[in-house]
Amino acid sequence: MDKTLIGALDIGGTKIAAMVANADGPLLRLSAPTIKIGAARAVGDQALSLLNTVCVQAGIEPGALAAVGVASCGPFTEIDGMLALATPNICGGKSGRADLPNDWEAIPLEAVLREQFQTIQIEIDCVAALAGERAFGGAQGESNCVYVTWSTGIGFGLCVDGHLLRGKHGNAGHGGHMLMDPQSDALCGCGNRGDLEALIAGRAIGQRAGLSTPALFAAAAAGDHAARAAVEAAAAWLGRALYNLAVILDTRLFLIGGSVWLHHGSWLAPIVQREIDARMPALTHGVLLQPAALGALTADIGALTLVMPDSWRPHWNRTQPWRALAGD
Amino acid sequence: MDKTLIGALDIGGTKIAAMVANADGPLLRLSAPTIKIGAARAVGDQALSLLNTVCVQAGIEPGALAAVGVASCGPFTEIDGMLALATPNICGGKSGRADLPNDWEAIPLEAVLREQFQTIQIEIDCVAALAGERAFGGAQGESNCVYVTWSTGIGFGLCVDGHLLRGKHGNAGHGGHMLMDPQSDALCGCGNRGDLEALIAGRAIGQRAGLSTPALFAAAAAGDHAARAAVEAAAAWLGRALYNLAVILDTRLFLIGGSVWLHHGSWLAPIVQREIDARMPALTHGVLLQPAALGALTADIGALTLVMPDSWRPHWNRTQPWRALAGD
Repeated sequence: MDKTLIGALDIGGTKIAAMVANADGPLLRLSAPTIKIGAARAVGDQALSLLNTVCVQAGIEPGALAAVGVASCGPFTEIDGMLALATPNICGGKSGRADLPNDWEAIPLEAVLREQFQTIQIEIDCVAALAGERAFGGAQGESNCVYVTWSTGIGFGLCVDGHLLRGKHGNAGHGGHMLMDPQSDALCGCGNRGDLEALIAGRAIGQRAGLSTPALFAAAAAGDHAARAAVEAAAAWLGRALYNLAVILDTRLFLIGGSVWLHHGSWLAPIVQREIDARMPALTHGVLLQPAALGALTADIGALTLVMPDSWRPHWNRTQPWRALAGD
Repeated sequence: MDKTLIGALDIGGTKIAAMVANADGPLLRLSAPTIKIGAARAVGDQALSLLNTVCVQAGIEPGALAAVGVASCGPFTEIDGMLALATPNICGGKSGRADLPNDWEAIPLEAVLREQFQTIQIEIDCVAALAGERAFGGAQGESNCVYVTWSTGIGFGLCVDGHLLRGKHGNAGHGGHMLMDPQSDALCGCGNRGDLEALIAGRAIGQRAGLSTPALFAAAAAGDHAARAAVEAAAAWLGRALYNLAVILDTRLFLIGGSVWLHHGSWLAPIVQREIDARMPALTHGVLLQPAALGALTADIGALTLVMPDSWRPHWNRTQPWRALAGD
């Protein structure tokens, strides 16, 4: 029997999750709030420590992990040729936000992880999510597909001609920052006005209507006209952005996930689809929208997929062993 | 000595060009106005006929061509699994334009070319141009680069992680139709309002100012404030579109060609660069703009590159044998 063991990390602005798996499936997953104090390497150290804890609790020697896949929030930058995180909602030196108790300009993630592990692959979380969806989810066998997350932020994982796109520093898919409306004064965390994330990111939709986003969606569901118009306008912006991606990349399939879509995708999907279908039929005819299939664990499973032996896939596909895990 | 012979076709809405080459370089190039009457297969037949004429005039048996590379205007569609052209400025059935003397819905290009040639590779002209620029021009050794044409239309060839992007029907790079300004009433030939091509395509810039485009540029060069503002606004739109591509694809290098850039790129480049540099430094820091290096023949050389034996490249790079050819 294949005794290979692999690890996975999902590094986000709110929490870090660590997981170990063997050929039969994930063994254990733990998560913890992302550390934001100390030296800039603290996040990498925390990730290593959490992964070591998962190993110990699962009865594994941490040194036995053959490889570690990492799904991380971005954007990435490079320090000495290795990937580092320049994430505004973790790095106080990057965002200048008073609520971040550090002055980090960049977090040396790859350098710290390589102190313990030789074989690692780090991707933006949406890229990892798409790897997972292509292996086990809704994009199996589809060479031209895009993973979309509509949540606190808007991000994409892109696949064209069967290649997952990475770009010069692994940042391909940051299309949440594409400019959509030059007249808008909606402000994005990145400083842009009128980019996609400024217009429709989770909190932004509610804020502009003077409500919390859940309250806005509840009002829309209860038939409030203004609330409904605000939510439908947000879905239309997403549709225009997906249309843009479809003509740039000649995509066939969009898989949409993230908390907003998870809760409201079923009634918003026709609005998004209409914006895609309304233009350039030579490129948009037959373009499909589907909900992402792997749910809240999509980035975690994606991180495993990045380093998983191909020979594991048929068994995992058949048994879907991640279903036993709880997300958070 | 390598006696391989290859052919190339450059199929545009205005003219078709055919070329043959051997290991030493191109032997002959001819062009003719694109046919727009008869059966839908007429364009493919004309391309074959022109290529046969080039062969005969070059003293070559047409059957001796080992492969034919094709750079074509788009968009492509598929008929029976083979690429066909659905180009609005050739197909009367597609555009409904009264000045097109045909009712073609789609031109069966690949099917007709395959009647004579087994080994062909067909790409959108900007994709072929990027293949040429990566082999012999300004993008050598650069894995994350975009070719941009600013001419009658706006098109892109995209390369990410060393892969030329094609998409589900070879239409990747149609970002000239990305939506830029939802308030704009500028109308694109595709029916979109406010997409990039509607805002800045060659004729559109002049039309909106009530002038021919050359007259507008001449007025701008002569110091007319309104003309200068119109041209600078167009360059800023291009810059915003390139910024969008840079965050979607994590691009390092933009190579810009096409007639507008060829004549005015040197003074417009800083405006375009400024729009890229003004946003998301983690992704845009170090992004370069350069003029395309292969000039008017870029798509033709690109078409040859698509089917050229790798062993020819060092000699072609050294001798730049295409310089003996005249473009049109």
